[in-house]
Amino acid sequence: MSKFTFDIKAVDGAARTGTLHTPRGDIRTPAFMPVGTAATVKAMTMDMVRSAGSDIILGNTYHLMLRPGAERMQRLGGLHKFSTWDGPILTDSGGFQVFSLAALAKKSEDGVAFQSHIDGSRHMLTPERSVEIQADLLGADISMQFDECTPFPATHEEAKTSMELSLRWGARSKAAFGKREDQALFGIVQGSVFEDLREQSAKALIDIGFDGYAVGGLAVGEGFEAMVHTLDFTVPLLPPARPRYLMGVGRPIDIIAAVARGIDMFDCVMPTRSGRHGQAWSDAGPVNLKKACFAEDMEPLDAASDCPASRDYSRAYLHHLVRSNEYLGAILLSWHNIAYYQGLMARIRAAIAAGTLDDLHREIAK
Amino acid sequence: MSKFTFDIKAVDGAARTGTLHTPRGDIRTPAFMPVGTAATVKAMTMDMVRSAGSDIILGNTYHLMLRPGAERMQRLGGLHKFSTWDGPILTDSGGFQVFSLAALAKKSEDGVAFQSHIDGSRHMLTPERSVEIQADLLGADISMQFDECTPFPATHEEAKTSMELSLRWGARSKAAFGKREDQALFGIVQGSVFEDLREQSAKALIDIGFDGYAVGGLAVGEGFEAMVHTLDFTVPLLPPARPRYLMGVGRPIDIIAAVARGIDMFDCVMPTRSGRHGQAWSDAGPVNLKKACFAEDMEPLDAASDCPASRDYSRAYLHHLVRSNEYLGAILLSWHNIAYYQGLMARIRAAIAAGTLDDLHREIAK
Repeated sequence: MSKFTFDIKAVDGAARTGTLHTPRGDIRTPAFMPVGTAATVKAMTMDMVRSAGSDIILGNTYHLMLRPGAERMQRLGGLHKFSTWDGPILTDSGGFQVFSLAALAKKSEDGVAFQSHIDGSRHMLTPERSVEIQADLLGADISMQFDECTPFPATHEEAKTSMELSLRWGARSKAAFGKREDQALFGIVQGSVFEDLREQSAKALIDIGFDGYAVGGLAVGEGFEAMVHTLDFTVPLLPPARPRYLMGVGRPIDIIAAVARGIDMFDCVMPTRSGRHGQAWSDAGPVNLKKACFAEDMEPLDAASDCPASRDYSRAYLHHLVRSNEYLGAILLSWHNIAYYQGLMARIRAAIAAGTLDDLHREIAK
Repeated sequence: MSKFTFDIKAVDGAARTGTLHTPRGDIRTPAFMPVGTAATVKAMTMDMVRSAGSDIILGNTYHLMLRPGAERMQRLGGLHKFSTWDGPILTDSGGFQVFSLAALAKKSEDGVAFQSHIDGSRHMLTPERSVEIQADLLGADISMQFDECTPFPATHEEAKTSMELSLRWGARSKAAFGKREDQALFGIVQGSVFEDLREQSAKALIDIGFDGYAVGGLAVGEGFEAMVHTLDFTVPLLPPARPRYLMGVGRPIDIIAAVARGIDMFDCVMPTRSGRHGQAWSDAGPVNLKKACFAEDMEPLDAASDCPASRDYSRAYLHHLVRSNEYLGAILLSWHNIAYYQGLMARIRAAIAAGTLDDLHREIAK
């Protein structure tokens, strides 16, 4: 019996809030997973990540298999011990980065051969190898099936071919993963913006049987309207009792729109990347602290926050740090942004429980 | 009456240990002051600086007067409020950086005219302006007299001319500073490696009367032997009842050699700069964590340390972070290095109290 039980405590329209239980701790949903690409959430200590309200982080298989290396990670005791993050970790399959970052990626039915963008070394990712790296070598709590993230735009024919390959890779991922109590495997629905393809993908994945279902192939340039339209017909295809994960999304307005359509989990580099570029997130969107108007602004980013980065430093100081290209600017703004995102998720969870998600949605979208 | 009372609790040869009391808190001596150039100790939060055992930090007048600007710093409530460091702060006078960093520095009896290395703007530093910036605008607890750091090597004639200028600037600094209870002003002994010049400088400064005395013009390329030889004849010239500060020093071996000659205070960018370059300090010197031998080293830098950066992360993880050029590598190694330095100062203070400084000296120097 899988220990990844999912308790939905309240619903508000299609939105749900609850808890995904894992052997390494509970994940409050809807959940935002900070991205810890290379075994670190950039410019933050794990204490900062945790104290900002994060229950789970994401690791990138592609980066970790190249450096420090998959077998080395196992010898070092796995990703949790290595990074000192003792909560749940979800890893992606490497399928996205191998096409976006690697050199000379060559796809076949078997998988993808490629060269490292770091040192040019040759590697091969297959469904079996991806699952081995994620579940056995890194020790991920939640592994993702190996898939191809269909590029956008794609013709119906291209999207169909790509989706069907991902389905075959999904079946092989599941066969390689087998049955596990302490680890979970999620399938990934593909099919671009085509309803019939999303339906075929979802049905076939459900037949295979996964612990959770991700919606892939979005946040790849299709735009907000196409994304929510695709969610409108895709999410209802997924089993209500299992967690649903929208990969690589997004801005607060994207997240709340997806929550309203029944999504439970998110990941995105935006809050940490913005933080390294001098931007502080707020309900009004990202604020560029480099702007001269902040040079003598003695107010903190958020006086009511529990996060020291949001509460204890003036905007004038953050402005100075960003202008001076100081590490501490990236540290504090990444920390603030993750705390803002986790605070938003907490407000979303509370709004669903109170039946007021629409009100919050209007507030964030205004 | 100045509130900067100095209690010497124990001596061991020429070395002393005690407490320099300040209105913003006690400084345990011998003390190491982390360098917070631009209102931040690079790659660290102030909580990390404090928790590593720091009682006082240093700020750079030159950098702060250019960015965010001296008058702006006053409008923002001073350097303590701006940086969130609520302990004592010592500022340098700007005299060193104006020659080493600024463009087109032009020296006259009045002071130094120069252009900003950041934006080319024109500025002037005089003894009066330096004291105004340090004590009135930044609100430093300890200000330094404006001086010229005599370059090395210098002829006796050059060193004499330079030292005499610094003396006249010292008298003007003191006149501008006046008498203050809550802030202190230190004089700076110059004279390069020449005993007669150091003696003239020290005597004249003592006649002016300062709250503490710094030895300047060392750690500028003269080498270890010349430095300790200069300390051998300079430190005995200084009033025993006042704190003595060796500017810009140094490696652990330099610090302990200077403590053995009666120095009480130090500052150096080395621990934080080393940390940003992948080096971890230990009694055996700096260790380059980039080296392949650390790739699977699961031991922490110092299992017995109270510092999380030293205790909670494997060398393999630090190696990975440094190789991957991750912010967290700089953060953790800077934190470790400051903790190592402060731990060394604590061992030095304990050894002086126990009369065993020679033993510690041999241990560090081996």
